[in-house]
Amino acid sequence: MSVERLRSYISEIKSLDESAMEKARLRQAELAKPPGSLGVLEDISVRLAGISGELFYDTGKRCVIIMSADNGVFEEGVASTPQSVTYAQTVNFLRGIPGVSAIAKQFGADLLVVDVGVNADIDVPQIKNKKIRKSTWNIAKGGAMTYDEAVSAILIGIETAGEAAKSGYKLFGAGEMGIANTTTSAAVLSALTGLSAEKAAGKGAGLSDEAYRHKIHVVRSSIENNKPDVSDPIDVLAKVGGFDIAALAGVFIGCAYNRVPVVIDGFISMVAALAAARLAPPAKEYMFASHASFEHGFAHAAQALGVEPCLNLSMRLGEGSGCPIMFSVIDAACAVIRDMGTFAEAEINDDYLEELRFGDKFSVN
Amino acid sequence: MSVERLRSYISEIKSLDESAMEKARLRQAELAKPPGSLGVLEDISVRLAGISGELFYDTGKRCVIIMSADNGVFEEGVASTPQSVTYAQTVNFLRGIPGVSAIAKQFGADLLVVDVGVNADIDVPQIKNKKIRKSTWNIAKGGAMTYDEAVSAILIGIETAGEAAKSGYKLFGAGEMGIANTTTSAAVLSALTGLSAEKAAGKGAGLSDEAYRHKIHVVRSSIENNKPDVSDPIDVLAKVGGFDIAALAGVFIGCAYNRVPVVIDGFISMVAALAAARLAPPAKEYMFASHASFEHGFAHAAQALGVEPCLNLSMRLGEGSGCPIMFSVIDAACAVIRDMGTFAEAEINDDYLEELRFGDKFSVN
Repeated sequence: MSVERLRSYISEIKSLDESAMEKARLRQAELAKPPGSLGVLEDISVRLAGISGELFYDTGKRCVIIMSADNGVFEEGVASTPQSVTYAQTVNFLRGIPGVSAIAKQFGADLLVVDVGVNADIDVPQIKNKKIRKSTWNIAKGGAMTYDEAVSAILIGIETAGEAAKSGYKLFGAGEMGIANTTTSAAVLSALTGLSAEKAAGKGAGLSDEAYRHKIHVVRSSIENNKPDVSDPIDVLAKVGGFDIAALAGVFIGCAYNRVPVVIDGFISMVAALAAARLAPPAKEYMFASHASFEHGFAHAAQALGVEPCLNLSMRLGEGSGCPIMFSVIDAACAVIRDMGTFAEAEINDDYLEELRFGDKFSVN
Repeated sequence: MSVERLRSYISEIKSLDESAMEKARLRQAELAKPPGSLGVLEDISVRLAGISGELFYDTGKRCVIIMSADNGVFEEGVASTPQSVTYAQTVNFLRGIPGVSAIAKQFGADLLVVDVGVNADIDVPQIKNKKIRKSTWNIAKGGAMTYDEAVSAILIGIETAGEAAKSGYKLFGAGEMGIANTTTSAAVLSALTGLSAEKAAGKGAGLSDEAYRHKIHVVRSSIENNKPDVSDPIDVLAKVGGFDIAALAGVFIGCAYNRVPVVIDGFISMVAALAAARLAPPAKEYMFASHASFEHGFAHAAQALGVEPCLNLSMRLGEGSGCPIMFSVIDAACAVIRDMGTFAEAEINDDYLEELRFGDKFSVN
């Protein structure tokens, strides 16, 4: 039943609107600048036209969806942070404490926080309670979750994105909170792409060398023991992933299904985007990479997905903290296609020179 | 006289405030995130503390200063755009036509437009009339300007930045408008660093292969014939630069003198920043690179200056168009150090859980 619902969402994702993209390209060619000189800002404006069918995209309300969950592999000592931090920061998002809270507030983005498997009872109405259960199982000892649970987690992401789109959000970011999720993300990346555990796994928030070696071992053996089926991303997410990654993959699919742009954050978000694109290839066209995370496997994941980050900030915090900054780049792209003048408008004539002479201050805007 | 005034400004540029920077580093270490996980955002916040002496920098009013001038080397056919475009776009900045106008408006940045040598009479009060003369001379046939004119252009930049700082601007961008100024910038870069003309010169707004070969020849021969003194950046700017680049170099020096951060835009702006740092090495600490311009010599200029751009947008428009986007990155850095909670504040206790239970909506901010 659930798998069928998921397949139905995926099958209904539409390609971008080619005719709207062509209109956007023509408009860019008319604007008063050398062709292509605004680079990625032009590309973004064309893609937004393809997503929305409109020449000018109104980014309006924007949000970062944060999927919070605990990961059973924590018990292997692969994280330098206590597990209780997943719970604490999930609650702290509401108090403005974490990095993404400060950054999202600065840029007028809302946070939508979803508990999809935090290892604690959370009774706070602003946090959406979609807990599948308290933490996944330890991927070093078996699968992280059942196949049905993976499908449920993906559906939670799809339907959360859908509700947000219906309530008027027009620009999405995909963030997460889940101690030990760089380990599960490395395992998913390694399983999906064949990348070695050494290249997929990094030191996360700050592991010792010894703990890092064990993390690599855990990533490698989780794949050898659980034998995820690379041809079925749901099986990969179930066997070596987490509720957080699976739900985030759902957010990417849900944004594509609802034809809204979605910004990828750091390593975990990028791996979730890759899993989503493997499940639903047309979803990729709705994704925008933000920053090049400093975390080890990020560049491999971005390359596997075929996206280029716009920001080089050596960040490795996660939470969706890079997304609101990328919203500004998207705002710039929207401003260019909407507000710049055309070559025809850029011609000088005496009438408006006369008008300008009535001005009297040294500064514009 | 003028040279003495310039030397006096330069000698009064102060190093960053080490004690304020140390306070900012301590604050970053207390914030609820793995140490260093916000990367460049942390570095920016530390540098802003060093610039201002305050832990929290109030970016408040921001502007892009645009230095407009024509370049005599235009007559060599090294530009694909008519020379009249310098005049037209200088006026068009007031009308919101060019790329930087659209982007600056989006981010609430003012444009301060200065005519330092446009090849036309401009009688518009919002444009600051600091015309040295109509266009420099052709660097393929002799020096671009006299030594005194170079000093005057730099002083115009310093004093424009100073007036803007006094009127309350706290965040600056350095842009330009001057057809053929990728040629003069390439010549300045080549003269200052010894980089070959082939590596310094690019295709600008869109040259044919033949015109590009001639541009390389002009850059090389302008240095061979004019013999700029690499130990004196003023001589380099006078012999192979332009009023636009020299005045922009002054903006960088003026921002440092007035202890305000200044954002570098594309190729011309980066070369001006390099010239400014050669003239006044402590000025470098007040500069922030924005985007990695697609123009040929940009990466060499950035490397020579020792700065790393934060944005990868394949832009090559100039005008200061990348600066307002970087203002957003700086805003994010300011938000993090000011608004994030500390580890102590991130501890969970029952009191605020009780408070949160009174909330009723699924979304924060």
